[in-house]
Amino acid sequence: MRVFQTTFPVRYYETDKMAVVHHSNYIRYFENARSQMMLDLGLPVEKMEDKYGVFCPIVSVTCHFKRVARMGDTLTATAEIVRPPLAKLIVRQTVVNQDGELCAEGEVVLGFIDRNTFRPVRCPEELYELFTDKS
Amino acid sequence: MRVFQTTFPVRYYETDKMAVVHHSNYIRYFENARSQMMLDLGLPVEKMEDKYGVFCPIVSVTCHFKRVARMGDTLTATAEIVRPPLAKLIVRQTVVNQDGELCAEGEVVLGFIDRNTFRPVRCPEELYELFTDKS
Amino acid sequence: MRVFQTTFPVRYYETDKMAVVHHSNYIRYFENARSQMMLDLGLPVEKMEDKYGVFCPIVSVTCHFKRVARMGDTLTATAEIVRPPLAKLIVRQTVVNQDGELCAEGEVVLGFIDRNTFRPVRCPEELYELFTDKS
Amino acid sequence: MRVFQTTFPVRYYETDKMAVVHHSNYIRYFENARSQMMLDLGLPVEKMEDKYGVFCPIVSVTCHFKRVARMGDTLTATAEIVRPPLAKLIVRQTVVNQDGELCAEGEVVLGFIDRNTFRPVRCPEELYELFTDKS
Repeated sequence: MRVFQTTFPVRYYETDKMAVVHHSNYIRYFENARSQMMLDLGLPVEKMEDKYGVFCPIVSVTCHFKRVARMGDTLTATAEIVRPPLAKLIVRQTVVNQDGELCAEGEVVLGFIDRNTFRPVRCPEELYELFTDKS
Repeated sequence: MRVFQTTFPVRYYETDKMAVVHHSNYIRYFENARSQMMLDLGLPVEKMEDKYGVFCPIVSVTCHFKRVARMGDTLTATAEIVRPPLAKLIVRQTVVNQDGELCAEGEVVLGFIDRNTFRPVRCPEELYELFTDKS
Repeated sequence: MRVFQTTFPVRYYETDKMAVVHHSNYIRYFENARSQMMLDLGLPVEKMEDKYGVFCPIVSVTCHFKRVARMGDTLTATAEIVRPPLAKLIVRQTVVNQDGELCAEGEVVLGFIDRNTFRPVRCPEELYELFTDKS
Repeated sequence: MRVFQTTFPVRYYETDKMAVVHHSNYIRYFENARSQMMLDLGLPVEKMEDKYGVFCPIVSVTCHFKRVARMGDTLTATAEIVRPPLAKLIVRQTVVNQDGELCAEGEVVLGFIDRNTFRPVRCPEELYELFTDKS
């Protein structure tokens, strides 16, 4: 399906004492790409709850680290919905550097929770269509 | 007045490519000491809003950096209310290492906002008493 | 094998606009437990490179999120080496709250890189013994 | 003098349980603007040490918070050198939102440390010229 992406420079405070980007930040970069995806789909993350009455908590994260990133690098994080979402939204994610080299790749799984009952629900139909038609 | 404190190890992800704690983290350490202060006063931060109907936004932060901290160091952050709070709560803050050496010192000023009107208010009387009697 | 652990309060800056700990922080909590493991084994992370001439980069991270944590919670992160390390060090990790409820669990895989050649190496023998005898 | 700037969206993980950007992040935004300044001056932060043999540690930070920022906001951080640097580099900093409203303003003071002697030095002459000619 469609691949969404966002590009940003490595920030000094994201480096650690090995002089490379701390691994936890790739999990944040993944989120940046998902936020951009929602923005591109016309449904900013912060509006989804009000519009569809659901939260999308993170169920699991997997990340494989392939190559370090350093201060001075410009990174692009991508997000791609793997298949039409039912009870879960599965997003394939990558982070590549300015030379197109893969720094990290992984998968993030999100659920849908009704904000009134706090119980898991299936992906709301309109949201399903948004994800499958446009992405 | 009374000095409140909390002790914690430097975390790997708090170091930066200079192999020292990134300066922004001292602002977070200051907050840790204020959270401990509220806990010691019997009023955890997350309960204050419900109990007194006020938020305490940060108005300003000043921090002077005196000595670097590194992975392996154990730091103690302190908070001391400078004078009885009226419209503002002024907190003197420090971070010292395991050898008692001063790493950072500064001052954080907080305001009081009514959570219904979103307007600045004076420090609620009970809160004032809590700060002045116990601290 | 032996389970290493470290306990710490949720920090205000670790919460996000859902009023729960942001999921990326569990990856950091996992690291805190591994740092404690190394400390308990008598080999602080920041000394390992000098002593054994190896780096231990993160190869992959998997984390399953089970229950949210909030401001006011006290969390314990654990680390347990799954089997004697050869080319890889596999660490099973959890985060539980003050009521013993599981918040997150996962697995972190680390490699060994010679700091002179920057090539992957097997776990140095002394380090192997440290991990298998004491842990 | 010349005002340098960089623009970026608020990131979800930068918000806190009040649903606004955590105050510590403005200190990081200030740094982003200084990194951009160095880049625009042709001297990326990570190259300065090698080229001029000096570190620039943060001496102090002051930040006044004027208006909250939220998820969905796009922020611009600015950096302006206040006067030609001698022993200290004084940088005036702001963060404004997409409507031009001031969210935070402050001042960051940096020193110059010789990387061999670890002693404070005056601003290297070439660096002085770079700051005063181009900025």
